[in-house]
Amino acid sequence: MTILDGKKYSEELIQEYKERLAKYPEEIGFAIIWVGNNSASEIYVSSKLKKCKEVGITPYLYHLDEDTEEKEILKLIDKLNKDPKIKGILLQSPTPKQIDILKCFNAISEEKDVDGFAKGSLGNLVQNIPYHVSCTPRGIIKLLKHYNIDLVGKNVCIINSTIIVGKPLFHLFIGEGATVTMCHSKTKNLDFHTKNADIVVSAVGNPGFITGDMIKDGAIAIDVGISRVDGKVVGDVDKESVYEKASYVAPVPGGVGPMTIAMIFENILDTLEKER
Amino acid sequence: MTILDGKKYSEELIQEYKERLAKYPEEIGFAIIWVGNNSASEIYVSSKLKKCKEVGITPYLYHLDEDTEEKEILKLIDKLNKDPKIKGILLQSPTPKQIDILKCFNAISEEKDVDGFAKGSLGNLVQNIPYHVSCTPRGIIKLLKHYNIDLVGKNVCIINSTIIVGKPLFHLFIGEGATVTMCHSKTKNLDFHTKNADIVVSAVGNPGFITGDMIKDGAIAIDVGISRVDGKVVGDVDKESVYEKASYVAPVPGGVGPMTIAMIFENILDTLEKER
Repeated sequence: MTILDGKKYSEELIQEYKERLAKYPEEIGFAIIWVGNNSASEIYVSSKLKKCKEVGITPYLYHLDEDTEEKEILKLIDKLNKDPKIKGILLQSPTPKQIDILKCFNAISEEKDVDGFAKGSLGNLVQNIPYHVSCTPRGIIKLLKHYNIDLVGKNVCIINSTIIVGKPLFHLFIGEGATVTMCHSKTKNLDFHTKNADIVVSAVGNPGFITGDMIKDGAIAIDVGISRVDGKVVGDVDKESVYEKASYVAPVPGGVGPMTIAMIFENILDTLEKER
Repeated sequence: MTILDGKKYSEELIQEYKERLAKYPEEIGFAIIWVGNNSASEIYVSSKLKKCKEVGITPYLYHLDEDTEEKEILKLIDKLNKDPKIKGILLQSPTPKQIDILKCFNAISEEKDVDGFAKGSLGNLVQNIPYHVSCTPRGIIKLLKHYNIDLVGKNVCIINSTIIVGKPLFHLFIGEGATVTMCHSKTKNLDFHTKNADIVVSAVGNPGFITGDMIKDGAIAIDVGISRVDGKVVGDVDKESVYEKASYVAPVPGGVGPMTIAMIFENILDTLEKER
């Protein structure tokens, strides 16, 4: 079994992005809007800020109160859309319940939607002319390709149907010529689908959810689950049983997670290259 | 085996739409842009014109020369976007090869994109807040619901991956709680996927492509294939063998086809209702 080492690969990518970004003389600003004080968001936001500095991007953090009204966020997005130094805008999810997050995502201009959640970006993906693509799905495909894994005609089972992971990933795999099944909480006989898959992607958030008896020999397991057990970050994949049967595993931590952050910069680079 | 009678149901719907449209005092204009002289398009366009008159919509046909340049089409779309009497714009596919059809689809304003192929409409669908949805997929779901077929947790196999049929249909089925597999020309062991499906949707265009041994007992077969054999319109479903095993069949002709045309008016009604 080979580990799909997203940590190592993302570090190489970060170096590459740093060099590519250095060729742009202008300031490359990246706006992060974080509403409230969700503790998981705090970890994600601070790690994004750190990586920005590492690659030479100037982060602008807008940390807003828990009770911020939607119209305030829309006004801020409008201002950032018009600010030429800002090359990317990210609205950290989740947002407090008074905020219609899709409405806010959709207010981000297509050029600056580096998270790829706005409807224009999603539509580009459906039309198979992807521009800004959601970072976790983009990172998964990039990691598989780095290990020269052929995707044409492969059976892929995705357990997740969100716009953040499952749906964009579905379109990327279809674009690569894979046959894709999307499973979710209403799926019956999940095992049947996972057992038939050459590649299983699990983004459930249930520790040990994917066990060895659910996959076929030689399958590729991509773990996108994030849970915390006794203070440790764990994924959906039961390592003991899955590692015995799989050919490749993208583990948690160290697999898809680090790729996700790196893909923000790939999306920002796409904006910069289109601007030129 | 019960026939999913799209012809009969669409006639009921046309009556319903006629009554609903009669409540709007203003002229309801519908622009059809047809470039070139494709013979299949001729049939589709003339049947759309006929149905428009039947429901009380004023069709405006723009029949352009085969060698019309893309910029001319974009200029026409821009004019129609601004024309208040035009409530829907349809660009008949296929277009001649000098035209980037996706670029033209994307130029149609979201309010008037009654075919649902523009990226904004596709993005709405991915976000699970569908507004204008591609007519064939919308018609398939409407037909299944008319026969009270429960979709939650059902295994669906879609053989088609276009933005016209497969991809929007995928999102509609996912929105209904089904587990969906998308197959296409690069799929290996197609039979495996069709045999496991409660609902098989075939839009291949290969007469008799789906045979009884490819489906399980009691499956639902939705035929979206259109071919012409000896001057007759035939679908993908091999009637003799499939009718023996299926519980329901949407046949060609008389199943999904008539539903597709009816859904244009449902999309136009959505525009009118949103305008009010």
